[in-house]
Amino acid sequence: MDYSPALMTDMYEYTMLDATLQDGTADRTCVFEVFTRHLPEGRRYGVVAGTGRILDYLKDFHLSDYDLKFLRDRHIVSPQTIQWLENFEFSGSIRGYREGEMFFPNSPILQVEGTFGECTLLETLVLSVLNYDSAVASAASRMTSAANGRPCMDMGGRRTNEWSAVAAARASMIGGFQGTANLLAAKEYDLPAIGTAAHCFTLVHDSERQAFESQVAALGKNTALLLDTYDVEQAVKTAVEVAGPDLGGVRIDSGDLAALAQRVRNQLDALGATQAKITVTNDLDEYAIASLQTAPVDSYGVGTQLVTGSGAPTCSMVYKLVEREGADGTMMPVAKKSTNKANIPGRKLAYRSFEYNLADCEHVIAGNRSQLDAYQPEEGWKDLLVDFVDHGEIDDTFRGHDAIMDAQNHHAEALAELPITAQSLMRGDPVIPTEVTLL
Amino acid sequence: MDYSPALMTDMYEYTMLDATLQDGTADRTCVFEVFTRHLPEGRRYGVVAGTGRILDYLKDFHLSDYDLKFLRDRHIVSPQTIQWLENFEFSGSIRGYREGEMFFPNSPILQVEGTFGECTLLETLVLSVLNYDSAVASAASRMTSAANGRPCMDMGGRRTNEWSAVAAARASMIGGFQGTANLLAAKEYDLPAIGTAAHCFTLVHDSERQAFESQVAALGKNTALLLDTYDVEQAVKTAVEVAGPDLGGVRIDSGDLAALAQRVRNQLDALGATQAKITVTNDLDEYAIASLQTAPVDSYGVGTQLVTGSGAPTCSMVYKLVEREGADGTMMPVAKKSTNKANIPGRKLAYRSFEYNLADCEHVIAGNRSQLDAYQPEEGWKDLLVDFVDHGEIDDTFRGHDAIMDAQNHHAEALAELPITAQSLMRGDPVIPTEVTLL
Repeated sequence: MDYSPALMTDMYEYTMLDATLQDGTADRTCVFEVFTRHLPEGRRYGVVAGTGRILDYLKDFHLSDYDLKFLRDRHIVSPQTIQWLENFEFSGSIRGYREGEMFFPNSPILQVEGTFGECTLLETLVLSVLNYDSAVASAASRMTSAANGRPCMDMGGRRTNEWSAVAAARASMIGGFQGTANLLAAKEYDLPAIGTAAHCFTLVHDSERQAFESQVAALGKNTALLLDTYDVEQAVKTAVEVAGPDLGGVRIDSGDLAALAQRVRNQLDALGATQAKITVTNDLDEYAIASLQTAPVDSYGVGTQLVTGSGAPTCSMVYKLVEREGADGTMMPVAKKSTNKANIPGRKLAYRSFEYNLADCEHVIAGNRSQLDAYQPEEGWKDLLVDFVDHGEIDDTFRGHDAIMDAQNHHAEALAELPITAQSLMRGDPVIPTEVTLL
Repeated sequence: MDYSPALMTDMYEYTMLDATLQDGTADRTCVFEVFTRHLPEGRRYGVVAGTGRILDYLKDFHLSDYDLKFLRDRHIVSPQTIQWLENFEFSGSIRGYREGEMFFPNSPILQVEGTFGECTLLETLVLSVLNYDSAVASAASRMTSAANGRPCMDMGGRRTNEWSAVAAARASMIGGFQGTANLLAAKEYDLPAIGTAAHCFTLVHDSERQAFESQVAALGKNTALLLDTYDVEQAVKTAVEVAGPDLGGVRIDSGDLAALAQRVRNQLDALGATQAKITVTNDLDEYAIASLQTAPVDSYGVGTQLVTGSGAPTCSMVYKLVEREGADGTMMPVAKKSTNKANIPGRKLAYRSFEYNLADCEHVIAGNRSQLDAYQPEEGWKDLLVDFVDHGEIDDTFRGHDAIMDAQNHHAEALAELPITAQSLMRGDPVIPTEVTLL
């Protein structure tokens, strides 16, 4: 498929561009904000992920000749707009919550400032990336908490779109995961890749013993042998016979995982393979992981529930115009008034306040430019907004492998600063309230 | 991002290839089958989608020098395997259910036959595509039924990964949708593109009237004006004043859609705009669509619930080795025996039987080669398996735009052949049973 981030967008972004170029409003300076009106039901916090990918896309956000031909042939925009698009480059500014940061209802997760025309073209892509990646990172964070120090690994690629799989691997790292089975993600973002063998590997051999021998010959003793193709107890015996007591690990993918893990652990220990690690997989989610806390499990492989956001496959983030230039050139707050979907006019500042080193409130401050410029936050409030793009200049420290690891660290720190109920798996309200102040 | 379908895969596919190349089993002829053990809870049927995209990927399923370097540098496979991969091309055969076909528990949705090595490399990608696309097509089909002839349009791109958005647009067409807001999908698959303007378009103008005037000037009177930025009643008045009674349409995106649609219809009719169509959007799912049956709505724009499978964001399809060559060269059925996840050994045949022109049973027949070759289905049974790839030769009639429209038609026909309870939105069992026969 011809790849073009500039067409990863809804048609109306282009028809709006077209109409505003004709009437002159396309050049008005605008601020759009990404936020969500609510967290998924019962969730205590959300985790921002995807911003680095948006910056990657921004580098390539140009229309190819094929794209322009398509827009022309379909009469989606006028010839004048085609001309305008020929040299399109985003020259605005973007700031927002960094990846790994917590978000709550009304947190201004991303602010895009530029002309109406350029900001409009980014809407769909920005939302696609943030809505999916943040859904996965939010689920990953809960799973990581539930695993309580034991590593979680992404094995979910097969249960979501093939590109979502790559994004999910990245987002899960931000939420605290330690590796992924997905090779394209491992390559693109330089992430640890994991995985050894599936049941078909055992089945294609004439015996389980031959399969294990083959795997140890190819991958060494430090590999993980899959136990549940035929009979788990026999498989453990065979595994240790084949690899010796230095066997690296085993994987269990079915049955009562807690009971099986204990039996396998006992058997491995009795056979001298005391260092062999036990990985469990099989439709795990944060609740299943929590229920395995006392089982002798060394790591978790998580699939479906990770890549589908564990019941919340998308965040409800929207991208709304909150401030724009008026006919007289001054900036003015704006907002639609739709029933139940009205939003707060004006650009926002965002801070988190603390008491006894724990966060106690998210402060969102809205107003006009001069009000915001004059605003002084209280002492000890953390400023949550970071600059990503300055008049078209992308800050590359927020892209690539290092940015992911920074985000992972930042997320762990930010989680430690939330009240401990944040890590409760019980349904409840956001762990801290969002206080919105209209100056 | 460097794009490579050959790395859109879990690492273990490559480590299994590596080990089996070393021990000789990589060359054994194998049959892998894609199936699901159950439909999402309460669903009456599933809809196959994605096969055409798999065929697209198969054309590009080669490892680039960068891919090979990655596999080498990370020591994922041995140098001998790198060499084997350099000229990799899938030379096996693929058959299965056509896109748009219904599937039920244990339906053999796809059968991949070839050497163990080549079939293994396809596993993750095949599952990613089928699991996501079929989830969307299945949801789309329910929505299309609920809409009862009124067109449904895909507007969900912003609520899912940016590439999922493209796949969702395609899959939704197979499920009966009539167009998409997503431009990349419209371009790639030559689909109808839809969409006019968002609230920000009204807000960037100094008045709603100016926004409407601009839109009509750019897009003509046959455009759809968005009504709920400020006050719907006033907006209808302004819309007809600006566009005249020939106004093409309006869109309502918030509030009580049934009541609003009726009020807007009355007002439009009173103003002479009797031909103006009403589109409603706002977190619609099949239940909301059904509840709008008696409201004067002309079309539905569906977002979040479409692209997230309306509560079932993935199918539970798996890819399992069911038959393989033995040491003596003969083919033998195989299956793992894992608790609760055991599967039926042997390649399958699949038929649907009918009574009074309505489907009454899905028949899945398993056995060894000679048993299947000799098998005679009963009269009137429909053979559900179609050849997509014959020894590496891809049948292009299953790719591209025409294949999507064929699948849409086929789906409508197949749905009409199911008992009417298939279209019930109430939770229940699969609408026909699957009868598995082991020869």
